[in-house]
Amino acid sequence: MTDEPRGGAAPSLHAVPAAPLPSVRPSVALLTDRYELTMLQAALADGTAHRHCVFEVFTRRLPAGRRYGVLAGTGRILEALAHFRFGDAELTYLERAGVVDARTLDFLRGYRFTGSIQGYAEGEIFFPGSPVLQVEGTFAEAVLLETLILSILNYDSAIASAASRMTSAAVDRPVLEMGSRRAHEQAAVAAARAAVVGGFAGTSNLEAGMRYGVDTIGTAAHSFTLLHDDERSAFDSQVASLGTGTTLLVDTYDVRRGVENAIAAAGTSLGAVRLDSGDLGVLAVEVRRQLDELGATGTKIVVTSDLDEHAIAGLAAMPVDVYGVGTSLVTGSGAPTCGMVYKLVARADASGVLQPVAKASAHKTSQGGRKGAARRFGSDGRAVEEVLVTGPDDLVVAWSPEDGGAPDDRPSDGEQPDLRRLLVPLVVDGAVDSRWVGAYGVQNAARHHLQARAELPRGGRRLSAGDPAIPTVDLVLR
Amino acid sequence: MTDEPRGGAAPSLHAVPAAPLPSVRPSVALLTDRYELTMLQAALADGTAHRHCVFEVFTRRLPAGRRYGVLAGTGRILEALAHFRFGDAELTYLERAGVVDARTLDFLRGYRFTGSIQGYAEGEIFFPGSPVLQVEGTFAEAVLLETLILSILNYDSAIASAASRMTSAAVDRPVLEMGSRRAHEQAAVAAARAAVVGGFAGTSNLEAGMRYGVDTIGTAAHSFTLLHDDERSAFDSQVASLGTGTTLLVDTYDVRRGVENAIAAAGTSLGAVRLDSGDLGVLAVEVRRQLDELGATGTKIVVTSDLDEHAIAGLAAMPVDVYGVGTSLVTGSGAPTCGMVYKLVARADASGVLQPVAKASAHKTSQGGRKGAARRFGSDGRAVEEVLVTGPDDLVVAWSPEDGGAPDDRPSDGEQPDLRRLLVPLVVDGAVDSRWVGAYGVQNAARHHLQARAELPRGGRRLSAGDPAIPTVDLVLR
Repeated sequence: MTDEPRGGAAPSLHAVPAAPLPSVRPSVALLTDRYELTMLQAALADGTAHRHCVFEVFTRRLPAGRRYGVLAGTGRILEALAHFRFGDAELTYLERAGVVDARTLDFLRGYRFTGSIQGYAEGEIFFPGSPVLQVEGTFAEAVLLETLILSILNYDSAIASAASRMTSAAVDRPVLEMGSRRAHEQAAVAAARAAVVGGFAGTSNLEAGMRYGVDTIGTAAHSFTLLHDDERSAFDSQVASLGTGTTLLVDTYDVRRGVENAIAAAGTSLGAVRLDSGDLGVLAVEVRRQLDELGATGTKIVVTSDLDEHAIAGLAAMPVDVYGVGTSLVTGSGAPTCGMVYKLVARADASGVLQPVAKASAHKTSQGGRKGAARRFGSDGRAVEEVLVTGPDDLVVAWSPEDGGAPDDRPSDGEQPDLRRLLVPLVVDGAVDSRWVGAYGVQNAARHHLQARAELPRGGRRLSAGDPAIPTVDLVLR
Repeated sequence: MTDEPRGGAAPSLHAVPAAPLPSVRPSVALLTDRYELTMLQAALADGTAHRHCVFEVFTRRLPAGRRYGVLAGTGRILEALAHFRFGDAELTYLERAGVVDARTLDFLRGYRFTGSIQGYAEGEIFFPGSPVLQVEGTFAEAVLLETLILSILNYDSAIASAASRMTSAAVDRPVLEMGSRRAHEQAAVAAARAAVVGGFAGTSNLEAGMRYGVDTIGTAAHSFTLLHDDERSAFDSQVASLGTGTTLLVDTYDVRRGVENAIAAAGTSLGAVRLDSGDLGVLAVEVRRQLDELGATGTKIVVTSDLDEHAIAGLAAMPVDVYGVGTSLVTGSGAPTCGMVYKLVARADASGVLQPVAKASAHKTSQGGRKGAARRFGSDGRAVEEVLVTGPDDLVVAWSPEDGGAPDDRPSDGEQPDLRRLLVPLVVDGAVDSRWVGAYGVQNAARHHLQARAELPRGGRRLSAGDPAIPTVDLVLR
């Protein structure tokens, strides 16, 4: 028994005492499962690598009881495409580790995605089977993106889906994201971004602020109070430095005393007090009364302890002004990933004709062929069903909502177009549509989500477990 | 209803149409909650920023029913320290967004961590209250690291803790990590690393292979079979390119036919077949029998469909050779984050004397003061209790296992030292101990974990819900 590293070879590890790399590297090409590259090697050797393919991303089911999912991450995929490059560092590793052969290394060195991608707008609502992303190109160029695309969509959508439930439960009160410390440090940035897509008003994460232009928030932790000789001197210091509009954390010692100290330090124009422990509903009532008695009628109450959508809903009648959410947001509130898959649904045969394909063994059956998608609305403007369009590929590609059509050929509701196309172009022949990237893309996605959510039928946003908010139906073209 | 981004201003977003940044950036300094910087600003203004502080990382409880936790991420923290730098890009953002004042920006420009860090060895087992990391330095330099340290330890330890249960359930059979697509793309790299710390034999993630020298695995997906005109031509291509030692995925169509095709393509020296759907136990028995009848007695069976530690344990009697685990690994098998906190436990007062501090309000009480930690072993070499050493700071710092001592002053078990110190130096005055970083650090951690886990009492590795494997007791020095 000793403090030293112990002897004996660890199983399954190369003896590579390399110097540590930077914690992140600009190329995202190796954020990829090895089999994408070994498949590429075999397909380059037999010629099938150049077959034209359509891959589709969808989920077979929503997390148990969830009524809708929220697509997020699309913009991050588009941003990542420019960094999906195999440079010297990546190629040297692949060669030394014997992952692929020389021909494949040559292909990877010149790799650029020159295909096309369409998908649901970021922020859009999705249901089981919804083709949220379609990637079209040669097998070689499309298969390489599988892992990265799924990583981004599965994580970001899990977070946005949870975020939407929280902001829905909060109604008009702002919800702030504070979960960075409970997620991988880079995932935390994506989580902050996805939270904003799902309606959050801001985040504590500075990198997300810099990268995506979202508002950042936060003033002080308990350690700041403990650092000082007493609570009052900590509050005095904070107010002197950050102004009376700041938020003072009042529960380090005794909340009632904390509120007294807060108003004594800042006066009645104090911006807010924060409660991070205890029975938040009861405390909020007591603190509101105390603040009002002290004349601080405009001072807000922020609550931040282990909140999720149910706790937020439970505080609806309490005098809470702002919710801060951490752990439950960044872990998807019980559903930390989506079940999205990246399936080859069509590929050219030897003569170049696109053919639908599907896995056919038991327990996992997928319909072959590319799908179209539209949402049907009733005369009240609310969604009634998710329409998945299937049939011969040329008909699916050419189909538009103006063609109308529905599973039962029901008549239209009059003047209003009752179908909205859900697939929009994101990348055309390798060129990224810039409306979906960066800070602007996040704004777009947040705005789109709010409107798409407002179109759900009444009851479709309930937090209780239930079926998807609308059914998914097939429109089969012939 | 239109395909276009919709009008109207999104709430809570700056109008910053900046060009998208690279998907990752070398500086990790903004992977940080805003309040770390605003606290710094106020503390710089009032002089308390330079007070000497000790922050301690610990968790108040294990996830429900878990018997132990596995510390992981320590090496990643040490690697990140060199990249915790505020360069022009970061400072420009902080200035423009009005996060902190000019004095604070000046401090950040020169920021280097010059303090000391000690902690449990990476791979070590931990229990509620275990001081897995202690960061000592001025308030200014130590508070800035809070968010990043917690992000890394909370995620990586959640994954390693789940991984350890899975490799424990698998006994001597290898377990492979394949979950990249169900986690944020950078979290996936950390998950692969943490899985290896927890005993996994390899990962599908190429970046983890490059970065940490761990073995990578993977051959082909269903899309490879679907790309080809039929299964046999896909298998022929794969064997031609990857050799007969490859693993063929045999469940795209009919498993029995798939096994026939696999042996027809590769011969009886085929490395392995993989089953990714269906009733894996039943299928494994059937496939084993079929392989043996075909003479492929050395061909292994890899199973990979929605496995977790319970499913692995349930397959113990089945002829399975290798387990591949995805979703449940990267989501911590029900516990996607740890509850680790970063608490100020001691700080210098105005006269420079270190004083214990602790939050004192209801519901969250922490003991003030720095803790020592040791594990006590019985005469059979198995752990019997986690000893947390508290008392005056100078006594805690000077305490060593050779001093003996126990809560009830029980006599030692003879010659064998019965206490093992758990805290080891990681950073001394800003200098990182290189034994804990890079590929070598991962090897060390994996090795250390296997030995620490082997020291748990019988029953301490059970998968069923229960109490921590050993109790935590206090040794109070006076």
